[in-house]
Amino acid sequence: ANIVLLPGDGIGPEIVAQAERVIHAVAKKFGHTFHLESHDIGGIAIDKYGDPLPAATIAACKKSQAILLGAVGGPKWDDPTAKTRPEKGLLAIRKELDLFANLRPINPSKHLLDSSPLKREIVEGVDILFLRELTGGIYFGDSGRRENDTVAYNEMVYSVPEVERIVRLAGEAARGRRGKVTSVDKANVLEVSRLWRQVSDRIMKEEFSDLQYEVVLVDAMAMHLISRPKDFDVVVTGNMFGDILTDEASMLPGSLGLLPSASVGSSGPGLYEPIHGSAPDIAGTGKANPLATILATAMLFRHSLKLEEEAALIEQAVDTVLGAGHRTADIAYGQPSIGTVEMADHVL
Amino acid sequence: ANIVLLPGDGIGPEIVAQAERVIHAVAKKFGHTFHLESHDIGGIAIDKYGDPLPAATIAACKKSQAILLGAVGGPKWDDPTAKTRPEKGLLAIRKELDLFANLRPINPSKHLLDSSPLKREIVEGVDILFLRELTGGIYFGDSGRRENDTVAYNEMVYSVPEVERIVRLAGEAARGRRGKVTSVDKANVLEVSRLWRQVSDRIMKEEFSDLQYEVVLVDAMAMHLISRPKDFDVVVTGNMFGDILTDEASMLPGSLGLLPSASVGSSGPGLYEPIHGSAPDIAGTGKANPLATILATAMLFRHSLKLEEEAALIEQAVDTVLGAGHRTADIAYGQPSIGTVEMADHVL
Ligand SMILES: CC(C)[C@H](C(=O)O)[C@@H](O)C(=O)O
Ligand SMILES: CC(C)[C@H](C(=O)O)[C@@H](O)C(=O)O
Repeated sequence: ANIVLLPGDGIGPEIVAQAERVIHAVAKKFGHTFHLESHDIGGIAIDKYGDPLPAATIAACKKSQAILLGAVGGPKWDDPTAKTRPEKGLLAIRKELDLFANLRPINPSKHLLDSSPLKREIVEGVDILFLRELTGGIYFGDSGRRENDTVAYNEMVYSVPEVERIVRLAGEAARGRRGKVTSVDKANVLEVSRLWRQVSDRIMKEEFSDLQYEVVLVDAMAMHLISRPKDFDVVVTGNMFGDILTDEASMLPGSLGLLPSASVGSSGPGLYEPIHGSAPDIAGTGKANPLATILATAMLFRHSLKLEEEAALIEQAVDTVLGAGHRTADIAYGQPSIGTVEMADHVL
Repeated sequence: ANIVLLPGDGIGPEIVAQAERVIHAVAKKFGHTFHLESHDIGGIAIDKYGDPLPAATIAACKKSQAILLGAVGGPKWDDPTAKTRPEKGLLAIRKELDLFANLRPINPSKHLLDSSPLKREIVEGVDILFLRELTGGIYFGDSGRRENDTVAYNEMVYSVPEVERIVRLAGEAARGRRGKVTSVDKANVLEVSRLWRQVSDRIMKEEFSDLQYEVVLVDAMAMHLISRPKDFDVVVTGNMFGDILTDEASMLPGSLGLLPSASVGSSGPGLYEPIHGSAPDIAGTGKANPLATILATAMLFRHSLKLEEEAALIEQAVDTVLGAGHRTADIAYGQPSIGTVEMADHVL
């Protein structure tokens, strides 16, 4: 299989390097051959080519089975007047590869429950899979200025087929889990949400009547995620609501350092990444936590390469390492900590 | 002063009745004369007049100094094919009275800290004032369907003056508090947010350079509100981000039952209400918690009638009652509880 590595900016290269070691270890142990290729994306690609998603990068991605991304962005490229930004590379790769579904599992590690800002009884046993629509909605609608630059607009748009495919994916995912789908919208105010709800109601009724199904308003969901997160199994929502809610939910486990995400389409390669950012403040110090990227690699094996055993083994190794008390600085809470490479050594 | 009462639906009439008793008590104690008038809004107004905001209601509101609202909505009016909805009454009154700023203080009562889903050390000492823009953004932009009903759209729009006035209000509020303003947007993706940020940066620099000022992306804010809520003083944001973030923040105190909100314009009456809904499940049982509505009344005295002493006295009475251990069912957590009227008796 061809795997493209996109280390990106900040701590990206350091953590992807550790995931690469894990990929090689899996190849050796299971007798697979993986062809790995690194390409530029984000700030480093702007510096080199003036483009956060160069043609060579996207061409390589299109020929691959799966993509592992580190992180993009940093203060160097934050100038609001700049003509392009690292984040554009992310948005463009999602669109180019039609990665319409972002999967974010939230299942707090039992070894780190006490580091959650929420009470143990609230987060213990939480197991949510978010499906965020990733190539539509307000992020990709028409936008601009008018009336002499004094008015700005962005259009939120969804079409029936866009909602159908993500809701179907949610239904299928729920069948392999606890059988419940929660669709989140703002149908009491937004026309887009009313369309979303009509389609979601119909697909669930026609194709997934074996599942439990509910709809929740986005503002209410922002509350429920904190007050009773255990009640949710698969949560499906649009691009912007998903952006906000998945980040909110990412606080439940107490650290971003363990959370992977997968962005997939209906065919072609999937894109796997840690949800944390490029952490420019610790880039180059060897302190970054590689576990989220290693867990993203497990998702890559599971979803894009259909190597479930390999995926489960990686996840188990991470769990064992945490159970043994090994901690990088971000999850050490003042206790002794180890560095990026050493953490990966333990997983290996 | 003229005060309009809009009891609305569900528990609305019960809780507004208790606030009315508090208003009378304040009048008597301080020698004020208040003229109170009740009008219909929401579901009950749809039932009576086919309109969630009848002309008589809005006319009375326009002649008043302040408005106290209970709650609107309920399953009876939830039919998605209905031609109007209770929520429309809310959106319409905000627009008609130009109530462009929604103020939501979040300062968890020290008597109820243990009922928060968050750890005590996270919520103790939190004191945030949210300013949510309330008459613009995606809730009021152009919306509809196209391509044979298979595509739905809503336009998010902000103009320079809309952002200026809410940011100014945030700056002024921060001067009377801890002197910090946090503006929340999604300027890395949305053109509307880039305009918001330009204006916010300019106003803060030109008119409030004495204050501490920061900008935070909405997804990051959804995290920070849980992980480090104490770091925020005044938070200002657009209509939809504010809807989601204020509801998220409302979980910090552990109960919605104590949270008031104020919606104000640059002149004319302000609208005060509890943030909880109409709770149709307990309507008529005499169990509803009247404290949020009573605290909304305190905000009404403070902001619209400029009666600070009266406002502070009400807030102090509520604090004393909670300190004495009196609890309605929603905040009793299985301990003995009292009803709506009895709770108001204690405050009185
Ligand atoms: C960087 C930004 C464009 C991106 C998004 O909002 O989609 C990020 O927040 C994410 O969630 O992946
Ligand atoms: C009922 C609805 C229109 C309203 C809103 O979203 O503004 C409510 O959620 C609120 O926050 O006051």
